[in-house]
Formats: sequence, structure tokens, C-alpha cells
Amino acid sequence: MTIPDGERLARQFAFLTEADRLKSVLRANLLCDASRQENSGEHSWHLALYAMVLADQAPEGVRIDRVIRMLILHDLVEIDVGDVPIHSANGTAHGSPDICAAEAKAAERIFGLLPGDQASAFRALWDEFEAAETPDAVFAKSLDRLQPVMQNLAGGGGTWTTYGVTWAQLEARVGAKIARGAPRLWDWVKEKARPWFG
Amino acid sequence: MTIPDGERLARQFAFLTEADRLKSVLRANLLCDASRQENSGEHSWHLALYAMVLADQAPEGVRIDRVIRMLILHDLVEIDVGDVPIHSANGTAHGSPDICAAEAKAAERIFGLLPGDQASAFRALWDEFEAAETPDAVFAKSLDRLQPVMQNLAGGGGTWTTYGVTWAQLEARVGAKIARGAPRLWDWVKEKARPWFG
Repeated sequence: MTIPDGERLARQFAFLTEADRLKSVLRANLLCDASRQENSGEHSWHLALYAMVLADQAPEGVRIDRVIRMLILHDLVEIDVGDVPIHSANGTAHGSPDICAAEAKAAERIFGLLPGDQASAFRALWDEFEAAETPDAVFAKSLDRLQPVMQNLAGGGGTWTTYGVTWAQLEARVGAKIARGAPRLWDWVKEKARPWFG
Repeated sequence: MTIPDGERLARQFAFLTEADRLKSVLRANLLCDASRQENSGEHSWHLALYAMVLADQAPEGVRIDRVIRMLILHDLVEIDVGDVPIHSANGTAHGSPDICAAEAKAAERIFGLLPGDQASAFRALWDEFEAAETPDAVFAKSLDRLQPVMQNLAGGGGTWTTYGVTWAQLEARVGAKIARGAPRLWDWVKEKARPWFG
């Protein structure tokens, strides 16, 4: 069954207007000038730019345009669930079963605003990102962990200070995930970050 | 001459950190809930999402992944020049020779932070967007004009109120450009926007 064009557009614009709310979801980390917290909308833009620039660091076979699309979508569920900082609750909140269930419900609602074919396609891309098994998703996840490190380095510590993060915690929660998809990037960033932890 | 990997990464991260400043450039239009002005970083993310969702409204031959990349880059020059609202100075400021010259200078500086090959490629994509001659650039420009209309409709008038915009001005400054790259989108949005102007 084909949806009449007007109804298709109405659904597409309902989704795009709902997506605007991601600009009001605040993350734990700050802008590079430490002037304020970053929001998840502008964070998603920055990550897409990271993917464009660091494409030559991606393992062979990674399709950067799919990575960019994943990163544009990856945080939309936060409209319902909020951002769950990596280092909050001593690193136990992010990725917990409760949070994952809430995010899946949010994905159902938010992508469900779109016409059926797009709802399925966007949901599949988000599921792929979350599962972090394909090369595209693994590289996208690496960038998602890398960018806040760079924000913290530029802005004087940021969330490392807020949450009293140790070097061992950074290596476990962040470094290992960057290294999985982009080992050379973690090698480079590690050298810059290590001295900060004394 | 190949740049050693460490220097290449240093340049890439210098660019990515500089790009963070786009999140502090304020636009004239508001978020959909009218809570605050939108910034150019989150605006660029929203436009990339517009391109993903409205891909099926693009004329044949448009390559959406190139459009997405253009939209991710298109406002970076505003780090130096600021946002020049379409309706400011009675519609004469945006696209004036002085502004265009300042933006070209900004593009030189900002893209020039990248390794040479990427500086050229990103600059070429930005030049293509600005020239608005290729199908990809024309469609990208249509989305850039369309999104603020949707923000104004959601948020109770926004920049139309601020600048006392008339229907004839909206058609000339905005509608004609949306219609050029995406005629069906303007047909649909026009119906929603027309009653607002009484």
C-alpha cells in the first residue's frame, strides 16, 4: 500500500520536528572552550565531521557514508531517555539493561513517526550501531568515544574532573573501545591524554 | 610528499577542535519549542537529518551522501564571519559581495588547517555548495532554506516576527530557492506557511 504523498511528507516532517528536541538534551562533557555543556544535536554533527575527516583512519572495508548516517541517528533515543554519561554511577549506568530497554522503546516511538519503510531502515541502522558488531558500527562507536576525550583535553579535564576518573578507568571504559575500531587513533590520543592523569 | 602520520593526525584534530566553535555561532531562528536561538552546529546536524529523511524528494541524479557531506561543512565559515540571517538588513546582507569575500577568506583559513589533500577536497565541496549550480548543491540549498521555515512554523513565527517579513518577501527570499531544488517540498510547506501571513 502506497501512502499518499501528502501523508508521507506529514510523517517525515513530524519526525524532523520531533528530532529538534535532541538539541535540548545536555551531555556531561563541555564545549572545547569549557563555556557550557554540549548538547546531543551538535555532538552528532561534530561526530559526522569526525567521520569525514578521520575516514583515512578507518579499517579497510568501512563505508564512511554509512558511518556518517549512523552517527547522525545514533543519539535520537536520548530525546526520551536523556544522555547517560559513560563515567556516571562509577561507570555502571551506561549500557545497563534498564537503559538499553528504555532506549529500545524510545527507538520504537521516535523512528515510528516516519513512514514505515524509513522507520524500518533507520531503526535497522540504529540497531546495527548499538550492536557494535559490523565494521561500520565499530568504527562509529570508536569516534563516539574519541570525541569527548578531545573535548576534555581542550577544555581542561571536563568530565574526568566531574567524575574523578582514573587513568585505568579511562583505558577500560573509553580507550579499549576507541582501540577496537581505530587503534592508531587511540595510540595517538593516549599520548596526549596520559600526562593529564599525572 | 607524504606527511608523516603523526603530523597528519595533529592537523586533523586541530581542524576538528576549531570546528567546535561552530556550536557557539547563534542563528536568528529559534528551536521548535522557541526556548532559545539555534546554533549553527546543531543546525548543520538537523540539515543532514533532513537530507536523509527527504532523500525521496530529491530530483533524479542527486547523490544524497554528497548532499549530507556538503551540509555538514556548509556553515563552518561562520566561525569567522557569523551567521548572516536571510531576512536581516531587509534581505540585502545575506550573499552580499562583502560577506561572500569574508566567507571565502574564512574557508581558506579553516579548511587550511587540514592536511593539503583534505583541505582541497573540503574546500571544493564548500565552493560547490556556495555556487549552487550542481544538482547536489541546489538540493542542499533547498533544505537549508526549508528547515528555518519549519522551525518558524513550530515556534510561533520566529524570524518572520523578528524581521517583519511579508508573504511576498518569504516567497522571493525563501520559497523560490526551496522550489528550485525541491518543488514538491515548497508546494507542501507553502500551504502550511501561507495562513500564518494572514
